[in-house]
Amino acid sequence: MIDLEQIRDCYTATPSKIVMLVVDGLGGLAHPVTRRSELETARIPNLDAMARESACGLTTPMLPGVAPGSGPGHLALFGYDPLKYLIGRGALEALGIDMELMPGDVAARGNFCTVDGGGLLTDRRAGRIASELSAPLCRRLNQIKLPGVELSVMPVEGYRFVLRLRGEGLSERITETDPQVVGVPPLTTKALDLGATKTSRLVNQFADQARQLLAEEERANMVLLRGFAQMPSLPPMGQVYHLNPAGIAAYPMYRGLATVAGMRIIPTGHDFAGEVETLHQSYGDHDFFFIHYKPADTAGEDGNFSAKVLRLEELDPFIPRIRELDPDVFMIAGDHSTPAVMAGHSWHPVPFMLHSKLTKGEGVPRFNERDCAQGSIGRIPATQVMLLALAHAGKLIKYGP
Amino acid sequence: MIDLEQIRDCYTATPSKIVMLVVDGLGGLAHPVTRRSELETARIPNLDAMARESACGLTTPMLPGVAPGSGPGHLALFGYDPLKYLIGRGALEALGIDMELMPGDVAARGNFCTVDGGGLLTDRRAGRIASELSAPLCRRLNQIKLPGVELSVMPVEGYRFVLRLRGEGLSERITETDPQVVGVPPLTTKALDLGATKTSRLVNQFADQARQLLAEEERANMVLLRGFAQMPSLPPMGQVYHLNPAGIAAYPMYRGLATVAGMRIIPTGHDFAGEVETLHQSYGDHDFFFIHYKPADTAGEDGNFSAKVLRLEELDPFIPRIRELDPDVFMIAGDHSTPAVMAGHSWHPVPFMLHSKLTKGEGVPRFNERDCAQGSIGRIPATQVMLLALAHAGKLIKYGP
Repeated sequence: MIDLEQIRDCYTATPSKIVMLVVDGLGGLAHPVTRRSELETARIPNLDAMARESACGLTTPMLPGVAPGSGPGHLALFGYDPLKYLIGRGALEALGIDMELMPGDVAARGNFCTVDGGGLLTDRRAGRIASELSAPLCRRLNQIKLPGVELSVMPVEGYRFVLRLRGEGLSERITETDPQVVGVPPLTTKALDLGATKTSRLVNQFADQARQLLAEEERANMVLLRGFAQMPSLPPMGQVYHLNPAGIAAYPMYRGLATVAGMRIIPTGHDFAGEVETLHQSYGDHDFFFIHYKPADTAGEDGNFSAKVLRLEELDPFIPRIRELDPDVFMIAGDHSTPAVMAGHSWHPVPFMLHSKLTKGEGVPRFNERDCAQGSIGRIPATQVMLLALAHAGKLIKYGP
Repeated sequence: MIDLEQIRDCYTATPSKIVMLVVDGLGGLAHPVTRRSELETARIPNLDAMARESACGLTTPMLPGVAPGSGPGHLALFGYDPLKYLIGRGALEALGIDMELMPGDVAARGNFCTVDGGGLLTDRRAGRIASELSAPLCRRLNQIKLPGVELSVMPVEGYRFVLRLRGEGLSERITETDPQVVGVPPLTTKALDLGATKTSRLVNQFADQARQLLAEEERANMVLLRGFAQMPSLPPMGQVYHLNPAGIAAYPMYRGLATVAGMRIIPTGHDFAGEVETLHQSYGDHDFFFIHYKPADTAGEDGNFSAKVLRLEELDPFIPRIRELDPDVFMIAGDHSTPAVMAGHSWHPVPFMLHSKLTKGEGVPRFNERDCAQGSIGRIPATQVMLLALAHAGKLIKYGP
C-alpha cells in the first residue's frame, strides 16, 4: 500500500457511501469455439445497463502473467500491495473456517496421514478419510497440552485440519513436517531463525503426542503440518482511508480477509440473497461495504463454462436490489479471473465498473472483458481501485496546492 | 528485474517450450502520405493469421518517450529492468564483434585519430581510414605490454576498434580521453573513484605507447578512448525462471546480449533462414529459445520505408516453418520501434503477440500497431513479456494462497 500511504493527507471523511461488490473469479476467457467469454455469453441485462452509465476498465490483480490466490486478490482490491502483505497458507486456512487469529498466533495446515509399523509414511492423506471420522480425532488432539501455550485443533474437511498455537514469543519461521513423498518418516520441524526455536520445539512435541494419541487408528495414525503462518499486520483500511468499513460474506475465508483489512464483519446468511438483505439492514451503520459473490469462481474452478455463465446470470437480478440503496459509489470488481477453459485462477485482467453520479456520461455497451477494455478507466492495477472509489465519493481531496 | 525476483517462488520448471522471436525495430509509424505504417502496408498473411489466434498487445520498451538502444531493448524483453542493468558502450561494442568479455574485464571504444606536431587534435576520426588500413595498426597496438594486465585490441570497422584490459582489480570508473573537439590535445584519463586509479594509470600508459607506435603514421597517429565499461552482473535468466535458455542470432551483438542474460549460444548461419534451421535442429535441447531477425531494423535505420516493408514481407514465410515445431508458447516481439520516417530507434510501443493453446479464442484481425493496441494484453512494459510467456507455458504458478 505504498502508493496509498503516500497520499495519506488527501483522504477525508464524508457522509457518502461506497459499496464494493467483489465477484469472485469474475473475468474469463473466450470459449475456443464461440470465441465469446462467460460474461459475453451470459444474459446480464442489469449489469449491462449499469455498465452504460459507469466508468469501466480492467484491473490487473498483480502483474501480467501472475495469477493471485484469494488472499492477494482481495487485499489488492482493498488497496494493499499483495507483494508486501502476504497471508500464509495456515493463516488463510484458519480464516476459511472462521477460526480467530490474533496477532502473534501461529496457524498451520494439518493433514491426517498413515504411517506403517516402522514410522514410514504410506499415505499422506490417510486414505482421504471423511469429515465424520476426522472430527472426533481433532477433539482428541485438542487434549494435548504444551507448556506455556494454548493449543487449538479445528477440523476443515476430510483429512484436513488447522492447528493454532497461541502464546508469547511464537514464530512462523519453522519448516514443514510434510516430506511430500511416502516411504520416509514425517520430518521434524526446524527453526529457520533463532527466534523460532521455541515454536519448533513445541510443534515437535505436538507431533510426538499426536502420534501416541492416534497410534491405534487404522488410517489416521499420524499428522503432517505445513504452511506455518502468522497474520500480517496491515494498516487498518478504516484508519488509512478515514472510513468505517464493513464486510458481508457468506464464506468464512472472505470474512477473514475483510477482518485482516480492518473491516467490521456483519453476520449474514449462507448465500448472496442473504448478503444483499444484510446490506439493506445495516446500510445506515457504515460508509463502506465489501460484499462478496462466490459462485462464479466455483464454476470456473470446475472448468464448467455453462455453469459459470449461469452463476453470472443468477447474480444479475440482485444488481437492481443493491442499486435501490442508491450508494454514492457502487463498484463491481473481481479478485482475479477464473476462466472456465483454464479451470483455475488466472492472471487475465478483470472487468471493473464504478457507478456514481459523476459517471452517468461514461459507460460501455456491455459488462465484459472486451467492452471494459474500451472503458474510460483503461487498465489499472487492482490496488488503485480504492482510490477511484474514494475520489468518486468525494472522499479524496486534491493533492498539493 | 525487481518485480520478477519478488515472485521468485512462482517460477516452476516444466517440459513446455517457449520460442521468442525478436524482430529488431519491429514497430513503425504511419507514412505521412498513405497514413499506414510499415506493418500495415506489408503483405504478411502468416503473421496476420497468427494474430487472429494470439493474445496481442503493445510493449513499451522503457518509458513513453524513451527510445532504447539494442542493449536495453533486449534486456527488457528478457525481463531485466534496463534502468537497473546497463551495458556500457565499450562492453556493447565488444559484444558486437564477438569479443569475449569476462567478469572484471574493462572494454573501451577506441578511435584512431590525427594529431599535429604539437600534439593537438586535427581529426578525431583519422580521416575515416578504411578497415584495411586500421587492421594492421590494431595488430601493432596489440604488442603493447602493460604491467599485470593482459591487453587486446580488435578492429571494428574503419577507424574504430575495441580495447580490452583483463586482470585483477580493474574498474570502469575512469574518464574518457576524447575531448570531443579538435585543436586541443587528447585528454589523459582520470579515476572517478579511488578503486579506479590503477586502471587510469594503465590506460594512460597504453595511450602513451600507442602514440609512440603510431608516430610515423600520416593520419592514424594517435588513439582516443571512451565508453570504458565492464559487463554488468545479471542474475542468469535460466536460474531465475528455471529455464534452460538458448540464443540463436546471426549478428554477434545479439549473441552477446543473449550471453549476458545467461543463455547458451547455438552456432548458426549468417541469415535468418539459417537461424530457423538451427532452431529446428536444436529444438530438443532447450525449453526457451531467443531467435533474432535483424533486417527490418536496418531498413528502418536507413529511413527506407519500402525496404522495411519488404523486410517484413520476407520474414512472413518463415512463420509457418517455426510454427511447425508447435511450441507451447510462440511470441513475436520487438526490442524497440524503428520507424522509417524517423530513420532511427524510437520510443513508440511495439506490436506484440503471444500464441498458445490458451489464446485460440483471443486475437485481432491483423498484426500491426493499430490492431495490437486493441488486443487482450493491452499495453505492458516490455519487462513483463517473460511473465506472460511463462504463465501461458504453465511455468508460473499462483501467487499466494
